[in-house]
Amino acid sequence: MGSTVIRNGTIVTADLTYEADLLIEGGRIAAIGKGLAGDETLDATGCYVMPGGIDPHTHLEMPFMGTHSTDDFGSGTRAALAGGTTMVVDFALPSPGQSLLDALKVWHNKSGQAACDYSYHMAITWWDRQVFDEMEAVVRDHGITTFKHFMAYKGALMVNDDELFASFRRCAELGAIPMVHAENGDVVAELQAKLLAEGNTGPEAHAYSRPSSVEGEATNRAIMIADMAGVPLYVVHVSCEEAHEAIRRAKMNGKRVWGEPLIQHLILDEGEYAHPDWDHAARRVMSPPFRDKKHQDSLWAGLASGTLSVVATDHCAFTTEQKRNGVGDFTKIPNGTGGLEDRMPLLWTHGVNTGRITMNEFVAVTSTNSAKILGCYPKKGAILVGADADIVVWDPQKEKAITASMQASAIDYNVFEGQRVKGLPRYVLSRGHVSLRDGALDAHEGHGAFVARESQGPVNRALSSWKALTAPRPVERSGIPASGV
Amino acid sequence: MGSTVIRNGTIVTADLTYEADLLIEGGRIAAIGKGLAGDETLDATGCYVMPGGIDPHTHLEMPFMGTHSTDDFGSGTRAALAGGTTMVVDFALPSPGQSLLDALKVWHNKSGQAACDYSYHMAITWWDRQVFDEMEAVVRDHGITTFKHFMAYKGALMVNDDELFASFRRCAELGAIPMVHAENGDVVAELQAKLLAEGNTGPEAHAYSRPSSVEGEATNRAIMIADMAGVPLYVVHVSCEEAHEAIRRAKMNGKRVWGEPLIQHLILDEGEYAHPDWDHAARRVMSPPFRDKKHQDSLWAGLASGTLSVVATDHCAFTTEQKRNGVGDFTKIPNGTGGLEDRMPLLWTHGVNTGRITMNEFVAVTSTNSAKILGCYPKKGAILVGADADIVVWDPQKEKAITASMQASAIDYNVFEGQRVKGLPRYVLSRGHVSLRDGALDAHEGHGAFVARESQGPVNRALSSWKALTAPRPVERSGIPASGV
Amino acid sequence: MGSTVIRNGTIVTADLTYEADLLIEGGRIAAIGKGLAGDETLDATGCYVMPGGIDPHTHLEMPFMGTHSTDDFGSGTRAALAGGTTMVVDFALPSPGQSLLDALKVWHNKSGQAACDYSYHMAITWWDRQVFDEMEAVVRDHGITTFKHFMAYKGALMVNDDELFASFRRCAELGAIPMVHAENGDVVAELQAKLLAEGNTGPEAHAYSRPSSVEGEATNRAIMIADMAGVPLYVVHVSCEEAHEAIRRAKMNGKRVWGEPLIQHLILDEGEYAHPDWDHAARRVMSPPFRDKKHQDSLWAGLASGTLSVVATDHCAFTTEQKRNGVGDFTKIPNGTGGLEDRMPLLWTHGVNTGRITMNEFVAVTSTNSAKILGCYPKKGAILVGADADIVVWDPQKEKAITASMQASAIDYNVFEGQRVKGLPRYVLSRGHVSLRDGALDAHEGHGAFVARESQGPVNRALSSWKALTAPRPVERSGIPASGV
Amino acid sequence: MGSTVIRNGTIVTADLTYEADLLIEGGRIAAIGKGLAGDETLDATGCYVMPGGIDPHTHLEMPFMGTHSTDDFGSGTRAALAGGTTMVVDFALPSPGQSLLDALKVWHNKSGQAACDYSYHMAITWWDRQVFDEMEAVVRDHGITTFKHFMAYKGALMVNDDELFASFRRCAELGAIPMVHAENGDVVAELQAKLLAEGNTGPEAHAYSRPSSVEGEATNRAIMIADMAGVPLYVVHVSCEEAHEAIRRAKMNGKRVWGEPLIQHLILDEGEYAHPDWDHAARRVMSPPFRDKKHQDSLWAGLASGTLSVVATDHCAFTTEQKRNGVGDFTKIPNGTGGLEDRMPLLWTHGVNTGRITMNEFVAVTSTNSAKILGCYPKKGAILVGADADIVVWDPQKEKAITASMQASAIDYNVFEGQRVKGLPRYVLSRGHVSLRDGALDAHEGHGAFVARESQGPVNRALSSWKALTAPRPVERSGIPASGV
Ligand SMILES: [Zn+2]
Ligand SMILES: [Zn+2]
Ligand SMILES: [Zn+2]
Ligand SMILES: [Zn+2]
Ligand SMILES: [Zn+2]
Ligand SMILES: [Zn+2]
Ligand SMILES: [Zn+2]
Ligand SMILES: [Zn+2]
Repeated sequence: MGSTVIRNGTIVTADLTYEADLLIEGGRIAAIGKGLAGDETLDATGCYVMPGGIDPHTHLEMPFMGTHSTDDFGSGTRAALAGGTTMVVDFALPSPGQSLLDALKVWHNKSGQAACDYSYHMAITWWDRQVFDEMEAVVRDHGITTFKHFMAYKGALMVNDDELFASFRRCAELGAIPMVHAENGDVVAELQAKLLAEGNTGPEAHAYSRPSSVEGEATNRAIMIADMAGVPLYVVHVSCEEAHEAIRRAKMNGKRVWGEPLIQHLILDEGEYAHPDWDHAARRVMSPPFRDKKHQDSLWAGLASGTLSVVATDHCAFTTEQKRNGVGDFTKIPNGTGGLEDRMPLLWTHGVNTGRITMNEFVAVTSTNSAKILGCYPKKGAILVGADADIVVWDPQKEKAITASMQASAIDYNVFEGQRVKGLPRYVLSRGHVSLRDGALDAHEGHGAFVARESQGPVNRALSSWKALTAPRPVERSGIPASGV
Repeated sequence: MGSTVIRNGTIVTADLTYEADLLIEGGRIAAIGKGLAGDETLDATGCYVMPGGIDPHTHLEMPFMGTHSTDDFGSGTRAALAGGTTMVVDFALPSPGQSLLDALKVWHNKSGQAACDYSYHMAITWWDRQVFDEMEAVVRDHGITTFKHFMAYKGALMVNDDELFASFRRCAELGAIPMVHAENGDVVAELQAKLLAEGNTGPEAHAYSRPSSVEGEATNRAIMIADMAGVPLYVVHVSCEEAHEAIRRAKMNGKRVWGEPLIQHLILDEGEYAHPDWDHAARRVMSPPFRDKKHQDSLWAGLASGTLSVVATDHCAFTTEQKRNGVGDFTKIPNGTGGLEDRMPLLWTHGVNTGRITMNEFVAVTSTNSAKILGCYPKKGAILVGADADIVVWDPQKEKAITASMQASAIDYNVFEGQRVKGLPRYVLSRGHVSLRDGALDAHEGHGAFVARESQGPVNRALSSWKALTAPRPVERSGIPASGV
Repeated sequence: MGSTVIRNGTIVTADLTYEADLLIEGGRIAAIGKGLAGDETLDATGCYVMPGGIDPHTHLEMPFMGTHSTDDFGSGTRAALAGGTTMVVDFALPSPGQSLLDALKVWHNKSGQAACDYSYHMAITWWDRQVFDEMEAVVRDHGITTFKHFMAYKGALMVNDDELFASFRRCAELGAIPMVHAENGDVVAELQAKLLAEGNTGPEAHAYSRPSSVEGEATNRAIMIADMAGVPLYVVHVSCEEAHEAIRRAKMNGKRVWGEPLIQHLILDEGEYAHPDWDHAARRVMSPPFRDKKHQDSLWAGLASGTLSVVATDHCAFTTEQKRNGVGDFTKIPNGTGGLEDRMPLLWTHGVNTGRITMNEFVAVTSTNSAKILGCYPKKGAILVGADADIVVWDPQKEKAITASMQASAIDYNVFEGQRVKGLPRYVLSRGHVSLRDGALDAHEGHGAFVARESQGPVNRALSSWKALTAPRPVERSGIPASGV
Repeated sequence: MGSTVIRNGTIVTADLTYEADLLIEGGRIAAIGKGLAGDETLDATGCYVMPGGIDPHTHLEMPFMGTHSTDDFGSGTRAALAGGTTMVVDFALPSPGQSLLDALKVWHNKSGQAACDYSYHMAITWWDRQVFDEMEAVVRDHGITTFKHFMAYKGALMVNDDELFASFRRCAELGAIPMVHAENGDVVAELQAKLLAEGNTGPEAHAYSRPSSVEGEATNRAIMIADMAGVPLYVVHVSCEEAHEAIRRAKMNGKRVWGEPLIQHLILDEGEYAHPDWDHAARRVMSPPFRDKKHQDSLWAGLASGTLSVVATDHCAFTTEQKRNGVGDFTKIPNGTGGLEDRMPLLWTHGVNTGRITMNEFVAVTSTNSAKILGCYPKKGAILVGADADIVVWDPQKEKAITASMQASAIDYNVFEGQRVKGLPRYVLSRGHVSLRDGALDAHEGHGAFVARESQGPVNRALSSWKALTAPRPVERSGIPASGV
């Protein structure tokens, strides 16, 4: 690969906006400045040159009820690149009883198809001494520094409060970060049973079974447990004001919590489930479900004010065929929607074009903040000399209507069908390779590489110091017991 | 028993303050007016004539680790009467697997000693079809309309979220009210183990193991579950801002929740556990533990503003001897303190004398609100013709220093030792019987009667209507599935 | 007037629901019990017998821009009685420079027409030594114990922060209660000018000029000033979450604040101003304007939880003709809507019938709480022997559609036109006089009497004690200045 | 000036921590990398190399009651450099009626003495057309893009709400940022008079006259006015939870507000005013006054969570002699304390060493965030090639006790006297000049240069877009008025 220069663009990072060219050599940024030259020149006139997007939350080829989510590391990363995203972080999901290291091998096998870089979070789906021990190897030997916990999916992935506490404490020791899918699984299961018994079997009942207060409660609980364990917390797919309120309340008490809204929850609302077409509604079944406008306003305010940190997709794409598994019983509809290709154009359109967030905030929440929190900054998420050349050249004038017929994803529909976006990638580079060029993908299966990440980030270390300083200490007593009143 | 007249006093109720005499016949208030006459006359000159106190939360002769709390229905109700309280509500605690109705018999046996009236809450300490069925009999046949749930005491009394949900729904059906002891039992157990392992074995570690955030979390969770189950909730011993905040947040969303602070948490703070004398600290071990001043301010504000509803004691008195069971291991110190005799004088001194609450609010939170919430108003908690003559004639000038050496309780110390109070009962009448007369008790074992209570109170009924009106409904669809995008 | 008995009804008060008959003699309740007899018998079978409504906020025959609000004490009190309200509290409004006592005379002249009882609040529209002095006479000689302050209407009624502070302190000394119309008048004036300049001249611009945040700010400010002055505060027409939040925040810190939502804000929303018909929109112009649903939910939750205390109307009725004064300039549309006749049926329909509030809470917020806060309980707002026989016999099965064509109010429209209500008065008694009988008014001009009220209520006294106890005290110092570092 | 290299240090920025050398040429950073060489070498072994501190809030040689604050641009900037601060932003204060441009000249005359770089905020102390017009020149011609407004100091600097609104709107038009000193000046004046009248004349009464609720109220009000005017807001010296709460509440609704706590409020508490030595207390008189620990915790949490943005000093140093002007009348004690030399060591000691904030957050709040918000990033506040070489080489092992006897400030005491700090500058460079070398100052009067700043920052632009998008629009109507009901 020769050198590449991106010319005449305006560089936009999480902190800065300035005019400069970029020189790329060996897959990295080699120089930033005016008048640079290289073997190939990409014209960025009228464009913003930004760090490629990082989607911190995807489920590619995720096993589910004997099948898998349809977008695998091949089609999923193609969709990512098509929309300006150059790195995804997927979830390695051990089965109950399965070794974490075995699960990791399974995921490494799948990810061979990836056309852009990727990393994994490791899920803690069960608990015993083996898991405790393997967590160290996962962090130290594999550079996987984030552990996901499901507070829902009772009887499957769900872990209880004592397991959460034990795993969170282990994360604290290892300088790792626990993540939670925060919904009260006991209550969801009870509501599902009650709804089915009452004849609420359609996809709208999926939303009825997972009200925002159920998410808010679990978020609040996970925050308390993380605080007791002395570790920062990352809350995935924050969809509602109640969860966001719990996060704000934690922060106002000095706790360290990050919240991740999804592009779906920012744009779509619960009205989708009232659609008379069953397929329409079922395709939008995901957990948490879409919420009403009040919640959307809350999420947008969180992005602007910094109480929420990153925007993800939870991309987990099932075909209409797969969704129909749940006809007559909403609990059998596979949970998940797509979004990898659309995340950045939608956020730009609804966020930057309206003035709800600045361009710099756009870069922060689509890329830089993920890299910082997850421990791979400035290799990723940065326009700095030495950083990986994961870059998107963004054309703010380019427009389209989103449609399944043109998407890279392998499924047969798109939950944003028909929405117009303004602001789309002109070029997308993955470690220097021009993977998208004016709408045409040139994505190579296997081009993507695994990104090992750093543990013991500054927030972990600071919090550990503070917890050590304020730890309980025994009261000095002379005789025990001593009399007195 | 002949008639009694209380003369020349000022009647103070939850809403009114006015001068009138009271005529008592047959254990009830027969007339309220000026210039009444009867067989016996009690002079209330300079005094306030108020409904006798109701303590909604006691544990008399409660079984614990092979022994029992030392104050039984005899000494406990004597202590109550000595301090102006004329009714206590105790907790019937079935062992795991024990029939609710059997537990009720056990409690009825103990309460034969009572010198003032009493009722019970029934605890739900396990869950299956039998419990579900017996709850109906408990409510309908026995007039016990409140069900207590422990979210702490893991491995003993604790019930899980699915059991809470099931029991709360059952309460909703029966028009009963669920109550919770709100602390996250999983986390408490983990913290206890961690503290012991670190050498934190003293009574102060009891407080370390139950931080306010652990209480706040459980309160928040119980509120959510009650809301999902469609039933009001009563949170016992609210000791901290976090729990109070959860209650306020619920109310601000239209939820129906009552909070009960204890007199101990209003007056005493966590500094007690730092006392160099082990006995001093151990005697104050209760759950939740005492908190710092910030929390006290929150509780007082709650009483004045109505976000907290009643003041109780959780009276559960163990001797120093019993407390010493936990030397070397704080988890073995029996949990509980006394307070029955001191609740009203302390609340008057710190509340009414300072202006933090009005006299009417004093009556509300010590008596009337409990009667209303628990379903025995205006038989109890009222100065109305026809109401039981449970009356306290309160002398606002009478003073003393609290001391164990003079108390009615059977234990050997008092956690309020040395505190001065101003405002004490001159007379206390239990269904017309003058049980306290200028400091001298005339309390008869067995005088007390069981008070059956009403279910389906107005708040239960209103909430059920609202929940029915807003219940989830299926979306109408023509064909399922139907195509569409 | 002979005696009257109300038979076979269910008495509903702010605390209690029970079956009893009422005997009325000499305009007062003479007996409550079973099987009572009197000269006249009113059948209350199937009905609730409740204290007559008290509307704490009306403007009858209020001077405005050279005209007056069209409903005067005659038609206004007829409307009140027609809807179950038996007492109104109007605002005496001195002109700038006018003696408070002179204004009082003017109001007494107008109120001669009243068909039900009434009282006044006194407005403080200017400030100097004379006002300071006359406030004492107003309280002590006239039994007017509440003083209204306008934080809006710049250049007319508005007073500034230093005047608020001075007047609030005077209230504290007198044991009186300050009230505020809370909107930032400076900002409203600026927004009005800006909107007119931009061509926003229609009635919808009235709403644009008074956003909820402008009300929230002023509420927050008034609360702080009252706290500094050491006096409780009554906030009229709380219409939005921001104002309600400020009140809740105050209460959570132990401050004493009452909030009064209007029936209009509970039922109607801002969509009314978008109506294509100018008259429709202009008729709904009032301050604060109608808000969106989020605010309505907040107000309803406040009524259920007690953070809001009473429901009023701010009845200030202008004809369409008068409203048209503001064609082409929304600032000239007279502010005000009607509601006196509809307040109770609407609150019952939307509150009690849905389960949002209980029947007892209905009585509290329509009647009893006003009487308590304003200092005329239990003369008013109570079903007690000796209380004034201001009574409504409420038929929960009676239905109608609201229509201007049938109303007692003198104006030509009704902002609730077409709304169906279920729950209406069968009889309404004003001091024993049957003023409404099955829909037929028998209201006598001049029957209404002025109600003098009590100052130094229990909340005022408690707060004064607390403020004295916690007042700033000088630090003891030996020499001043003394050296040191 | 030849080239300088800083060798063997660890570079710490607001985002990143990494090992590299720095090459400085011509007062700017010329290169960042390993193994750099230059004319002079500074050894940074064991040190952190950070952007020099920016103090966004100082008052050097500020006129006051016929005298001036004692630290002028000479001694003040020497103190700054001694503590690692390389830029100060002072306040140009026009007298009422004085041209803004004239005031600017006065300030430029004073600042000739500066030994480090500086900028100004312009105060709006009065309002008319001239001020409106000159604001444009101030922004466009002079690069002063921030306008300060005093909501306190009634009769002197205070402006009213209508003036705030007008000035804030002007800021919106100009892409400038309004700042507020937020205390309710009317209420402070009333409380001052009341306290003096009651004999509260000592310095502690200064604190009594400015309670936290008075600051919270004004903060809340300024936020509302800025929102109505459509402009971001910067709140100086946020000292208390109430003000912080108002800021958080604004952010949670998507508003753009920055809060600036002072190092004094983070470290010192109200107990200082109870000191028996008058001088001790008077030296600590500043507005807002010190608060209790609850408020300190709130401020620290704000720094960690990002709801507060920068740490300043409000350095305004008066000698003991000057303070004694207020003997017998606390309102005559000049308001202000020092802190320029101590801000960074204290924040490091209490923040980084304890783990309350990370090193990167330390850089953000002491330097980078100010540069971004105020419009001079990355010229200032950055370690980037091309940035000004304003650099501090920080030795985390260096310790001292703070003492007036060793300070650069010209006054005779230090409010932090005796406090131990760990973490101090080894070298401080101002545009490449080594101004501090191992504790020895080499600060040249006049070396400092004025920094012009950029208006129309990204947050201003985004907010303007959003406000335009959501601006009120007239309702379309056919005929006005049209009939209808
Ligand atoms: Zn999930
Ligand atoms: Zn997921
Ligand atoms: Zn308990
Ligand atoms: Zn208990
Ligand atoms: Zn008004
Ligand atoms: Zn009004
Ligand atoms: Zn200031
Ligand atoms: Zn200042």
